[in-house]
Amino acid sequence: MIEMYRSKNCGELRISDVEQEVVLSGWVQSNRDFGGMTFIDLRDRYGITQVVFNSDDNEKLSEGARKLGREFVIKISGTVRERSNKNPNRPTGEVEIEVKEMEILNASKVPPFTIENETDGGEDLRMKYRYLDIRRNPLKEKLMFRSKLAIETRKYLDNQGFIEIETPVLIKSTPEGARDFVVPSRMNPGQFYALPQSPQTFKQILMVAGMDKYFQIVKCFRDEDLRADRQPEFTQIDCEMAFVTQEDILNTFEDLTKELFKGLKGIDLPDFPRITYDEAMKKYGSDKPDLRFGMEFIELNEDMQGNGFGVFDNAEFVVGIIAEGIAGSYSNKQMKELTEWVQRPQIGSKGLVYVKYNEDGSIKSTIGKFYSDNDLNTLKEKIGAQNGDVLFILCGETEKTRKQLNELRLEMARRMGLMTKGDFKPLWVVDFPLLEWDEESNRFHAMHHPFTSPKKQDQEKMMKGEHETMKGLKADAYDLVINGSEIGGGSIRIHDRELQSKNFDLLGFSKEEAEEQFGFLLGAFEYGAPPHGGIAFGFDRLCAVMNGESSIRDFIAFPKNNQGRDMMIDCPATISEEQQNELSLKSTFVGSNE
Amino acid sequence: MIEMYRSKNCGELRISDVEQEVVLSGWVQSNRDFGGMTFIDLRDRYGITQVVFNSDDNEKLSEGARKLGREFVIKISGTVRERSNKNPNRPTGEVEIEVKEMEILNASKVPPFTIENETDGGEDLRMKYRYLDIRRNPLKEKLMFRSKLAIETRKYLDNQGFIEIETPVLIKSTPEGARDFVVPSRMNPGQFYALPQSPQTFKQILMVAGMDKYFQIVKCFRDEDLRADRQPEFTQIDCEMAFVTQEDILNTFEDLTKELFKGLKGIDLPDFPRITYDEAMKKYGSDKPDLRFGMEFIELNEDMQGNGFGVFDNAEFVVGIIAEGIAGSYSNKQMKELTEWVQRPQIGSKGLVYVKYNEDGSIKSTIGKFYSDNDLNTLKEKIGAQNGDVLFILCGETEKTRKQLNELRLEMARRMGLMTKGDFKPLWVVDFPLLEWDEESNRFHAMHHPFTSPKKQDQEKMMKGEHETMKGLKADAYDLVINGSEIGGGSIRIHDRELQSKNFDLLGFSKEEAEEQFGFLLGAFEYGAPPHGGIAFGFDRLCAVMNGESSIRDFIAFPKNNQGRDMMIDCPATISEEQQNELSLKSTFVGSNE
Repeated sequence: MIEMYRSKNCGELRISDVEQEVVLSGWVQSNRDFGGMTFIDLRDRYGITQVVFNSDDNEKLSEGARKLGREFVIKISGTVRERSNKNPNRPTGEVEIEVKEMEILNASKVPPFTIENETDGGEDLRMKYRYLDIRRNPLKEKLMFRSKLAIETRKYLDNQGFIEIETPVLIKSTPEGARDFVVPSRMNPGQFYALPQSPQTFKQILMVAGMDKYFQIVKCFRDEDLRADRQPEFTQIDCEMAFVTQEDILNTFEDLTKELFKGLKGIDLPDFPRITYDEAMKKYGSDKPDLRFGMEFIELNEDMQGNGFGVFDNAEFVVGIIAEGIAGSYSNKQMKELTEWVQRPQIGSKGLVYVKYNEDGSIKSTIGKFYSDNDLNTLKEKIGAQNGDVLFILCGETEKTRKQLNELRLEMARRMGLMTKGDFKPLWVVDFPLLEWDEESNRFHAMHHPFTSPKKQDQEKMMKGEHETMKGLKADAYDLVINGSEIGGGSIRIHDRELQSKNFDLLGFSKEEAEEQFGFLLGAFEYGAPPHGGIAFGFDRLCAVMNGESSIRDFIAFPKNNQGRDMMIDCPATISEEQQNELSLKSTFVGSNE
Repeated sequence: MIEMYRSKNCGELRISDVEQEVVLSGWVQSNRDFGGMTFIDLRDRYGITQVVFNSDDNEKLSEGARKLGREFVIKISGTVRERSNKNPNRPTGEVEIEVKEMEILNASKVPPFTIENETDGGEDLRMKYRYLDIRRNPLKEKLMFRSKLAIETRKYLDNQGFIEIETPVLIKSTPEGARDFVVPSRMNPGQFYALPQSPQTFKQILMVAGMDKYFQIVKCFRDEDLRADRQPEFTQIDCEMAFVTQEDILNTFEDLTKELFKGLKGIDLPDFPRITYDEAMKKYGSDKPDLRFGMEFIELNEDMQGNGFGVFDNAEFVVGIIAEGIAGSYSNKQMKELTEWVQRPQIGSKGLVYVKYNEDGSIKSTIGKFYSDNDLNTLKEKIGAQNGDVLFILCGETEKTRKQLNELRLEMARRMGLMTKGDFKPLWVVDFPLLEWDEESNRFHAMHHPFTSPKKQDQEKMMKGEHETMKGLKADAYDLVINGSEIGGGSIRIHDRELQSKNFDLLGFSKEEAEEQFGFLLGAFEYGAPPHGGIAFGFDRLCAVMNGESSIRDFIAFPKNNQGRDMMIDCPATISEEQQNELSLKSTFVGSNE
């Protein structure tokens, strides 16, 4: 007889399999002892099957079964029987296995938390025992979703003629942008590789190389201080195309996104609206607006200034949103709490003005002294508010106020339950500025990255390089936004050496720095670089957004915590002096590494 | 009108497209001027199309065309016409485009080598201008093959229920095995990550986590002194399965291999023979024999000793191979040269004995003094040699002599043209020893790796741990070999904490070292680890072997040279002192980095 661990898995037996002899292996999910009968739920990746030991048939076997603890690994053989008390909530719920033989493949200590959909384990414990956490359905399913999403992405891009090309992980450090992780080279002492923050220059080189359509699902790395939902290593769907306009790219990747939603979620997405960066900022105060709900900004300078209310009269910008139907449910106390919320340093507003249009037609506002009910009813008409709505108003410096109102808009949506799970509202934000002025460092930064092309009509202006006009330069740059998350972003690239040099120049690179860091790309542009552009999707984020989850962490098999540590394998860790010597390195850290 | 770079690509137009108006973009492959007519071969990833400028129709356009240099990037629009002189060697060879408009999208300097199938560029130049080299068909096709191979691999494994799971790139250094690349942690000063040499422990953890069937096409890293065909970063098809025997794994991955050969090469491979490690060593002196040809080893102690030839009589081992049909073509001089070849230090044989069985029935040998023609004819009969064959004999210490004869066997096959391109002879080598004794370090090494399970029948012996018996322990370890290359290797793993601890112990780990490096795995084994095993395929190597190529380098888009340098981007490179300080690091290298 051939040695065999299973003839079936724990998820596939049905009523039609009754009387079959089967072999199953798996983990003991639960063990219930009813005197003569012992019922074990046997679990594997595919499901749970009930297996039964009858002490009348085999007392010794039954005794063994009673001793099985949670998470023991066992192999059983027996006969499929129809269950008397069926479990309609489980695909295998109509059958059970009458066990004839049982072998313990491995014992288990009592796990430090329960292996259930809702576990009692805290975050740290679950990170340390990640292998137990992954046994839980929610994590298992997230990892399986991720795998499926990658497969479907690849199928789509392959069908569209994209070639997956692996770009190197050991590359050169380019201090522009985020911080690089570096890797000392033993064979080239004193020198370092860097891990890529993205394969940007390589994918452009591949376009110069004539590969025409490139993609890669690829790990990228950023040595940044980690916020709650950032990881030092993350995954991108990275794409580039030659001989394309922005239109070609948006269409290709809108179609990919639709296919993925259709294939993985069964959802038909309508065509994605496109709005300009300027419009997004004006309407939502954000370049990644959540369109599951309205609450578009209403600019109120004209309406609200000149009534003697100094706060408004002296403000550069007065702007509001209408929160529909909440007038009745927001008490004075709640309004006060909301005011304090916008005044928190993270938001930084000086105060919150509201106008409550009550259901009964009465008005309650914080500015009644300066605006009569008549004034406020005229406004109500004009902005389309209804009885029962609340108008919130912020004011101050334009850009800051927009950002504050964006925060309030999102917070109100959260409180009002408007961020509907299962509702997906994608859009393209286009026409980003090429450069943004950084007050702190007193120089321009690339809004997207230094390889982004200005719009054709702005190229002449850019080559002239007059400082005042630079802020107005628009780029062929675009973001794909879904439900307030930036899922992807890209641009048409510069493919002309002169224009690229000019851009480096504007970004504060000296000729030498540009040559040292990107000389190979500038050089490549001299040998027949085609027009090209591309996009990159945050793959971890896409997984999370498609499942209506806010955190990417559980879509990553082995994530790191906010200190960049892998709690399971306990790394990073010290290395031996011998290893350091081989690398011509010395750690200057004098603290304790206990 | 929408801006558009092309309505068709340069590979798709056929005679049925005649009279169509088309837009094409691409590179100028060649420019031939025949007075009034200018013919340009326009190239993109998909092919080459001839485009024609007629000065009678448009003198100015034609003048522009005459000035186009090689590798200029242009866009043309025009009408598809039937060619008068057709080119049957090109899919588009029946048509040409009569150009109406032309735009130069980018100029090109004269490339430093020709963009042809056979180029005049040297290795270093081609590495530096990799983007030009990739424009050449042979490289382009290799990269496309690689992409297709990855897609097909994923499709197969996905269909078999494997889940692709990304394991982390920033892990912990485990100095056992090859040298790690390390990555200093800024947030955890004095500590380092390491880049994975393989995801071995993570994939085992995923089996403990119940994922059942895992795979990943994944970058791995080894900081080794690079031989001609090694790369510091390389790609594996990495797989692991739970509740399986060796048989299950061999069948699954034999089937994968067959599918890949069928899908990508149109070749039906027969079932793969399986031979034990011992048998492979005995028959071929190698654990990765090339089976495209015979020349199996013939052990000759019994036949050749005792005739007074001291060299044989005093040797532990006398062994030969029959090279068929070469007696007539190997002169004395060539035999002498071959003798010198086996005496080179890389081979290290003391000498080479041969017996030439000439076509005419006469015999010429180097040992005629000790063996009569009668003796040698009896031997001929026994070993099945024919007139025209040559018997080569080596002798000495058994293991060394086998290795030397393996080299000679391969060399003879090379000289005799037996390494037929397009002929594929896969096999499984099984039953590897668990441990190998290393004379130099005076300790055992893991033949496969420290997680490999001894065969069931050897586990008791192993737990006893008597030194003399350890060399004889066999493992459930296996290699997939094709045409003399190890394509894949794997094993059934230990899933028992005690057995794993014992293995670490035998391999010279102290309890503390084992705990520090692999404590998480030993810990995981206590919470219900299932029986499991896996395999990893060298993906770069698989690409090369499937195409009958000996080098992996051109299947990698951006390979590094033997000094671990990327010649195109010029890395590794120095990093700033500021970067080093942030990482609490100091380079101790005092040489020059010019």
